[in-house]
Amino acid sequence: MTYTDHTTEEINDAMQQAWKAFHVYRNYSLKQRADFMRAIAREIENLGDELLRIAAEETHLPEARLRGERVRTMFQLTSYADACEKGDWLEARIDTAVPDKNPPKPDIRKMLVPLGPVVVFGAANFPFAYSTAGGDTASALAAGCPVIVKAHPAHAQTSELVASAVLKAAGACAMPAGIFTHIHGVSFEVGRALVEHEHTKAVGFTGSFAGGKQLSDWAGQRKTPVPVFAEMSSVNPVFLLPGKMKEAAAEVAKQYAGSITLGVGQFCTNPGILVAIDNADLQLFMETLAAEIKNTAPADMLHPGIFKNYVERRANAIAQEGVEMIAVSGTEPQLNQGAPTITTTTASTFISNPLLQQEVFGPYSIIVRCADMNEMLTVAQQLEGQLTATLMATIADMQQYGELAEAVKNICGRIILNGVPTGVEVCLSMQHGGPYPATTDSRFGAVGADAIKRFARPQAFQNWSNELLPDELKNENPLGIWRTVNGELSR
Amino acid sequence: MTYTDHTTEEINDAMQQAWKAFHVYRNYSLKQRADFMRAIAREIENLGDELLRIAAEETHLPEARLRGERVRTMFQLTSYADACEKGDWLEARIDTAVPDKNPPKPDIRKMLVPLGPVVVFGAANFPFAYSTAGGDTASALAAGCPVIVKAHPAHAQTSELVASAVLKAAGACAMPAGIFTHIHGVSFEVGRALVEHEHTKAVGFTGSFAGGKQLSDWAGQRKTPVPVFAEMSSVNPVFLLPGKMKEAAAEVAKQYAGSITLGVGQFCTNPGILVAIDNADLQLFMETLAAEIKNTAPADMLHPGIFKNYVERRANAIAQEGVEMIAVSGTEPQLNQGAPTITTTTASTFISNPLLQQEVFGPYSIIVRCADMNEMLTVAQQLEGQLTATLMATIADMQQYGELAEAVKNICGRIILNGVPTGVEVCLSMQHGGPYPATTDSRFGAVGADAIKRFARPQAFQNWSNELLPDELKNENPLGIWRTVNGELSR
Repeated sequence: MTYTDHTTEEINDAMQQAWKAFHVYRNYSLKQRADFMRAIAREIENLGDELLRIAAEETHLPEARLRGERVRTMFQLTSYADACEKGDWLEARIDTAVPDKNPPKPDIRKMLVPLGPVVVFGAANFPFAYSTAGGDTASALAAGCPVIVKAHPAHAQTSELVASAVLKAAGACAMPAGIFTHIHGVSFEVGRALVEHEHTKAVGFTGSFAGGKQLSDWAGQRKTPVPVFAEMSSVNPVFLLPGKMKEAAAEVAKQYAGSITLGVGQFCTNPGILVAIDNADLQLFMETLAAEIKNTAPADMLHPGIFKNYVERRANAIAQEGVEMIAVSGTEPQLNQGAPTITTTTASTFISNPLLQQEVFGPYSIIVRCADMNEMLTVAQQLEGQLTATLMATIADMQQYGELAEAVKNICGRIILNGVPTGVEVCLSMQHGGPYPATTDSRFGAVGADAIKRFARPQAFQNWSNELLPDELKNENPLGIWRTVNGELSR
Repeated sequence: MTYTDHTTEEINDAMQQAWKAFHVYRNYSLKQRADFMRAIAREIENLGDELLRIAAEETHLPEARLRGERVRTMFQLTSYADACEKGDWLEARIDTAVPDKNPPKPDIRKMLVPLGPVVVFGAANFPFAYSTAGGDTASALAAGCPVIVKAHPAHAQTSELVASAVLKAAGACAMPAGIFTHIHGVSFEVGRALVEHEHTKAVGFTGSFAGGKQLSDWAGQRKTPVPVFAEMSSVNPVFLLPGKMKEAAAEVAKQYAGSITLGVGQFCTNPGILVAIDNADLQLFMETLAAEIKNTAPADMLHPGIFKNYVERRANAIAQEGVEMIAVSGTEPQLNQGAPTITTTTASTFISNPLLQQEVFGPYSIIVRCADMNEMLTVAQQLEGQLTATLMATIADMQQYGELAEAVKNICGRIILNGVPTGVEVCLSMQHGGPYPATTDSRFGAVGADAIKRFARPQAFQNWSNELLPDELKNENPLGIWRTVNGELSR
């Protein structure tokens, strides 16, 4: 199924509608927003197996994965709805007046208010959870922002179906016209027109570095720049420390074979770089990993563009001087299938060739062999910003190699101890974000209810009478939310 | 007193030192950071009257103002120190493991961690409170970031003195070398080298739009862009509503004469635009304001550059077609003195000429006369982003003109009801920030302890054993800070 690109005029109409809707929706209560989000989750469920069938056709993802992703998407909508209603994210603060201070201190109250219409770009690798009614859309609606979704062309029909569910929920919940718009566009001009529109106040994106950087540049060059939350490239380095390797090299290798090939490596948290001391334990690790990789069959990638990129980037990485092949899947890949692949190189080669740090999106990892812990530290210090980094380490390792742990902390948003980076739990304590180029803004994350805060800004109300204040800031705290009153949290 | 510009080599050395210091200082306890900040406040006090004398010489600000600003600066340091130690700003969240979930849910804990070395540009108009050891420096130190201050050339000796106090405190508190560096530079190349250095992780700036935009552009064009928190231009519009004007036109005029001319109009919250319905009440308002302005003597501006800008921009604003003079100070200004000035124009002229929206930094305001409330609404909708906006309104006005109040909310960081925008209270509920071009990032503010969060980012710790976690996230909560544990706030 293909769709005609929306025209500039249609985009302009949509943004005008969204702008009008913003002024209505921003004043809807937290409960009204939450009910709308819950209704969206129900309508997505009501789409039934038809949704899974079409998504499978468009994305080549297995049914079990799609079924799981649908559950996750509904959980995001309902759990962010709960968080929205609970109001912790509003960061409500009240400082009451002190009239006899010199000069008198006025009554000041502050809370987060929505930014305005948010443009969300559907992600190729998450047709539900990071697309039409995914995490960015849920966050924006919770914050009080209308949403304009640009469907990912690779699953435009899936997107169209989900959009119909959102619009049905909007109707049932009496949302203002323009609260949600679905836009098709194969041409980059559609995305550009959306990002550059004066009524667009923020952008959410999950995808390639090139794509995120382009949106970010467009947004930054506007007369009034707007924030772009782009989750881009990350190679999610794993540091295999000596004590842990002595204890469990083979076990760790098996664990990582699964993480590297999960979903044909098409996760932003896929571990692309494994760093270890070059010794007998690493030999055992590599042999075990090689055996696992040989036994892992290639599988269909999401769409031909991603497949083509994988083939090219993998070939380019392998062709670099000093890179050796360790293992490749023993089964010949069909067209559009990604073959699991492991290579290796020395730390000195890795450090001197920045290309080896670049993401090869798919089931590919490189093992970086270090002469000693100093070299491992240098590797850590030279790495770019990452969504995650992992330490496979015993307690003794952690105590002995504190400087390495510090360096690794410094480059990532989430630091995992003895685990795998794939599998992103949706909860408040999750940080799915990280220093550039992992994302465009390390101060926010895309998973968990704190993601709502990306689309809001603080506003202070000075000297307002109680009856005119928003409910969130009234003396009597009618919503029963947590607020910092004269320096102390209470509700 | 003039100082030689620091060389690129010296700047590079300073940044290397700051980068080393970062890795030490980030692990200092909240209490150690707070004690350091309190020691800085004491050392500033210990500089005694010498500091006030030199600052008065360099800035031409009256002694009483400087004395008050010094108190405010010390209060910022000590109150942000208290906030730092209290730890609410860390946004600590803990979700404990659920091993029997499928797949098992790992233990995840999150808190804000420092970004890295922060470059702070001293502000011309706040030699203490927004310069060397001002709000940006205090925020960065609380967050765990070393600070590199670029002294404002207009008060370089004042800056040098305050820097000596910071360094004395650093010595007494056994801070790592490189925790604080003081840089001189008249050439813009010094600022550029600081912003572009790879170890610079964030920038704080208070000043002109041109200056803030330049820093922001440099920071955005880096291989690894970094956030710039620039507080730039704001005309702080005031909407005089009909009911309030009927009640108290003369009284409001007197109040505003004081706010417009306070500190020779050299505050970023100075009210530069007054919007009202063109009727008899406005006539009374203008006559009263004119009389007050005529009676207000010109006074020395901060430095010749600011004076020159005021003269030029004021002349340019007055020269626009459709702008009439209402009042100017009855006393002839001396060289470097700013003459209080009020002009007026119609809403239609104002709307059609964007130049009239631009800030004239100094004691200048324009009264925008509207035919009716619809025109006032159009003015509000066309205004750029602002630090503050003010409604002078009765309760009945607010109920009757809700759409105007909504439009005004949408353009500003702080919305004041029946007050003046000048006078920025330092407290948690303050928002000193606003939509572009008031600042480069409306999601943060520069005054109050929430300003600390500008220089920090969330980091999640997954599957860490209790003994290896930072104290802030340990099971036993040794610091006694507020944390959200499995969704509920507690301490």
